[in-house]
Order: sequence, then C-alpha cells, then structure tokens
Amino acid sequence: MKIVIDGMGGDNAPKSNVEGAVKAIKEYNVDLIITGDKDILEKEFANYEFDKSKLEIVHTTEIIENEDKPVKAIRSKKDSSMVVALRLVKEGKADAVISAGNTGALLAGGLFVVGRIKGIDRPCLCPAIPNAKKGMTLIADGGANADCKPKNLVEFAGMSNIYAKKVLGLNSPKIALANVGIEEGKGNDLVKKSYEELKNIDVNFIGNVEARDVINAYTDIIVCDGFTGNILLKSTEGVAMSVMGLLKETFLSSTKGKIGAMLLKDDLKKLKSFMDYAEYGGAPLLGVNGGVIKAHGSSDSRAIKNAVNQGIKFAQGNVVEDIKEFIKTMESSEEKE
Amino acid sequence: MKIVIDGMGGDNAPKSNVEGAVKAIKEYNVDLIITGDKDILEKEFANYEFDKSKLEIVHTTEIIENEDKPVKAIRSKKDSSMVVALRLVKEGKADAVISAGNTGALLAGGLFVVGRIKGIDRPCLCPAIPNAKKGMTLIADGGANADCKPKNLVEFAGMSNIYAKKVLGLNSPKIALANVGIEEGKGNDLVKKSYEELKNIDVNFIGNVEARDVINAYTDIIVCDGFTGNILLKSTEGVAMSVMGLLKETFLSSTKGKIGAMLLKDDLKKLKSFMDYAEYGGAPLLGVNGGVIKAHGSSDSRAIKNAVNQGIKFAQGNVVEDIKEFIKTMESSEEKE
Repeated sequence: MKIVIDGMGGDNAPKSNVEGAVKAIKEYNVDLIITGDKDILEKEFANYEFDKSKLEIVHTTEIIENEDKPVKAIRSKKDSSMVVALRLVKEGKADAVISAGNTGALLAGGLFVVGRIKGIDRPCLCPAIPNAKKGMTLIADGGANADCKPKNLVEFAGMSNIYAKKVLGLNSPKIALANVGIEEGKGNDLVKKSYEELKNIDVNFIGNVEARDVINAYTDIIVCDGFTGNILLKSTEGVAMSVMGLLKETFLSSTKGKIGAMLLKDDLKKLKSFMDYAEYGGAPLLGVNGGVIKAHGSSDSRAIKNAVNQGIKFAQGNVVEDIKEFIKTMESSEEKE
Repeated sequence: MKIVIDGMGGDNAPKSNVEGAVKAIKEYNVDLIITGDKDILEKEFANYEFDKSKLEIVHTTEIIENEDKPVKAIRSKKDSSMVVALRLVKEGKADAVISAGNTGALLAGGLFVVGRIKGIDRPCLCPAIPNAKKGMTLIADGGANADCKPKNLVEFAGMSNIYAKKVLGLNSPKIALANVGIEEGKGNDLVKKSYEELKNIDVNFIGNVEARDVINAYTDIIVCDGFTGNILLKSTEGVAMSVMGLLKETFLSSTKGKIGAMLLKDDLKKLKSFMDYAEYGGAPLLGVNGGVIKAHGSSDSRAIKNAVNQGIKFAQGNVVEDIKEFIKTMESSEEKE
C-alpha cells in the first residue's frame, strides 16, 4: 500500500505536509509518495530523521492556488502537485491521496482525474464535526453538490455508511436526514422524497434530525444536500468560535474575571482542543475510484498525519470495492421494481 | 391602537401571558385585548395591580395545543384563543396579535384567517438571532416556506427591509444571501438566481454571507429559503447551548475549575443572557394583512412584554401599508420589463 501527499497544497505547505509525512512514516510505517518541487521538499525533509526508504518524492513544477478556478486549474495545471498526486491514484500507483489544497479543485480533480465509480451519480464530500459527546458526526454531503435529487442522498447514505464502518470502525452507524422537524413528512420536497427512499435501503436509517441536535450526537451520520451540509458545518464552526471569543471578552472585562480565567486556563484549553478540527484529519470524497482525502486548508502536521491514517484505513477497508457492491445492489433492486 | 394577546398559547400560558400583559400595560400604556378562558384569566389578573381600563378579556372556549395539526386546528377550533385573536386583527379590532402557541398553526392562521397581502406570494417568518456584536440579525425566511423560488426570496428581502427600518429603527439595513461562499456565482440554483434579482431591487443588498459569519453581524438581514433559515437558527441555538454545557462540565471537573467558575459566575450569567432569546421578543409573520408576532413557545413574561412592544411598533410603523407599496413597485417594474 502507498499513500500520496500533495506536498504543495494547503496554507502551511510544504512545511506541515513534510512534517506530517515524517510523523506518518514513524507512526504507521507507511510507504509514502509526496508531490512537489523536489529541491524545496528535499530541503524540508533534511530537517528530520526518518526511514528514507519509505519515501518517494515525485517532482512537479506547478501549484494550484486557492484563488485558482477549480475546473480550469485541474485542466491547465497538468504538472501541479495536486493533479500529479491524483493521477498516481488513477494509475494505481497510490491507494489514496491527501491534499490540503484548493477544495473545489480537489473535488473537480477527483471527478476528472480519478473518475467516478460507475453507477454513482454524484460523489460526496464527507467531513466530520465534533459533537457534544466528544466524538464526531459525519456530514454527507458536506459541500460537493449544491443541488441534489433524492437518488443522490440515497447514494450519500450508502457510501458514508460504508466509510463509517470501514474507516471509523462503527458497527451499525446511525443515519439521519437533516430536517426542520423530527416527524416524518416535515421538510422540503427533497427531504420528504429522500425519507421515503432511505427507508428502503440497507442502512440504519433513524429518521430526521433537527439542526439544533446535530451537535448532540443522536446520530453518527447526517445526510443532506451539499448546500445544507455546508450551512451546518460552517454555522457550527462559526458559533463555537464566536462563543469562545465572547467568553474570553467577558472574562477579561473584570479583575475577578481575569483571575477566574487564569484558574481555568487548562480547562479552557481542553475545551478548545475538543473543538479542534485538526484532530479529525480530513474529509473523504466518496464515490470516486480511489481514496481522495481533503485535509483542512489550515492543516498542521498532526492533521496531515491523521489524514494519512484515514487514507490507510480507506485503502485497507476496501471502501471503493464496497461502494461498487452497494451501487450494484441498488441497481438490481431498481431493475426489480 | 390595540394589541391582542393569545392568552392560552405557549408553554407557560396563561401565567406568563397575563404577567406579560400587565408589564406591557404599565410600560407602554397600551390598550390590550387578551383571549382565553375568562374565569382562568380573571383569576390570574387578580394577582396584579394595574389600570384595568386598558384591558379587555375576550372569552374563548378552545385551545390549540402544540400537538395539533396546524391547518386542521385553525379550521376546526374556531373558538380557540388563537383563532379568535387572529380574527380580531382581520376585523380591524386589533392592530397586531401576539401568540406563543403552536407555530405552524399561527402561520396557517396568518394565511387563512388574517389573509395574505395582495401580490405577496409567500409570507415569511422573520426571527432574530443574537450576534457577536450583541445586536441581532434577522433571518427571512426563518421557517415558513421550505421550498422557495427566487421571487419569494426577493419578497422576503423587501418585507424584512421594511420591518427592520420601521420596527428595529435601522436606517439602511444590510441584506445578504445565506450561501456557501461569498463570491457571486456560488451556491445552489435558488441562490444564484435570487442573487441576480436582489441586485435589481431597492434594498441595501451586500451579496452573500457564509454560515460561519452569520453570527458576526456583517449583515442586518439574512435572506434564504425557510429550510435553510431553520437550519441556521437551530444550529446556532444548538451549538451555543452545547458549548455552554461543555464549559460547565469542564469547569466542574476540577477543584480549580470550580473555584474559577464561582469567580466567573456573574460574567457567565451575562454571557448567557446575551444569548437569551426572550430578550428579542418574537418573530413577525411578514406579508399578511396585519401584525402577527410569533413569540417563542417558552416565552416568559418579559418575552411577551417585548413581543407586545414589537406589535406596537409594527402598527405605528405602518409596516403592512409599506409592504403593499413595495409589492406595487415590484409589480409595476415587472410590467415594464
């Protein structure tokens, strides 16, 4: 097995990517490829001691920037660290790619370079958000598809179910629809129709979940269109950050507050680390012909290392093969109808 | 001017409603009507001293419960405190109605009893959420319409603009579209088309806002379909509550934490009160022929009093007349095209 890291993607590239690669080699004894400018990468790796036989650097001359238009960038920057990394997966030379670069470009590259699994209409991004039970909840789709049909949400449910089992080790992941109320029959056209279809597939579908309860971990996976998924993810992030900010401000506004905050320093740090996205690695793009893991743009070396671990489990768990099986079952049940 | 309170609606009815009515009479010297069981209400009012000439009790025999199906309840419980209160607005005997009862029923009652303003396709609910600048941000639509067309979002923008000017006293309220990115061209079909149309109407449209920034008060009003609005509102509420809960748990897990929390007690209370929905009264239903204010189901007397104040400003500001003017302008510009 081999995992490839897009060496030049992300706000902290290549430093965090290189350090993350070294940590991953040490911790998982994994064979890695890293794409990017060979000189720059070699210079960075020179700062670390590790088993060099586990690493291959593939030289590339271009970088896809955050400002680049996704589809155009994938098509025109053929020798970018991202496109070359994706191509290595396509060609079977690597089992999974980790990139902290331009999200839109990675989604486009997943589709155009790695390619969709036959039968899958829309691949989905499947990020995790921390929940109040100190675990994580998956969002499928977390932002790849703004407009969806019920068929897409069914695919998201099936694919994220496999990912949760194989990569997160959940036994029978609970799957719920993001909705405006818990009763069946609530919501917009899309969720009403999807509800009906989700009842008929072989996943542990528990019904609707309200946005208020997303953080309460009543469910392992939340299924929704990518627009709703993005709203859920980003509002959770925004509100958590904002409440922490207000808290700080409130504490610093009085002497008593300052003393109290000093006493609570360690506890507050603990709380902040629980809300830390780096802990959870990256978000897989499910439904393409290989492992594609999107790490957060601001990933530090720990986030990159954790994303490599996801890539390893993704490959070991044969997630792609299982998704192919799932879509076959879906197609044969459609034929029967 | 007269405001009518649905005396039996809400989790704390009739006690909070009665106490809220008394507070409103004292603070605003307003003429109030309250609907509900006369014996029960009179007994409650007997606990307070206030100017009884400012109050009229209209006896009703039925109550719409939270479990009741909205449309059915409005049609079958004709002598309920909610329907009678709505009818008083319809008949011009009251200028606005305040209800903390069944939200769906109040929305249905707004449509079927009070009636839509001619030309308005879909009335919208317009709740406020607290923001990090210790003000509030309006959400239009906050949950009345799960499926929307661009035309609806344009109406929501126009109506909430008038409400923000007349009731909240904002000079030129900033209006943004809830979206997955700030750049024009982002999002689902609905927001892409709505963006185009919002540029052409006479409001202070500032473009897109990401869910992460909803709480940061970059905008006064957020326009979206009611499904997205509900997701935004409830996820904000859920995450804020959850972070406060985790905070408490973290503090109580160590002796140092407990001492610190004791010192910070007042500051934490201040923070909690900032996130307190009661502070902001209720959410108006915009686009019906009169003032209809939905107070939170768990409203205390202060929330009811604040909602009465909203009703007063709604009537004084001639919000309904202004919405009629707005829709005329929209129609004449459509004819020109």
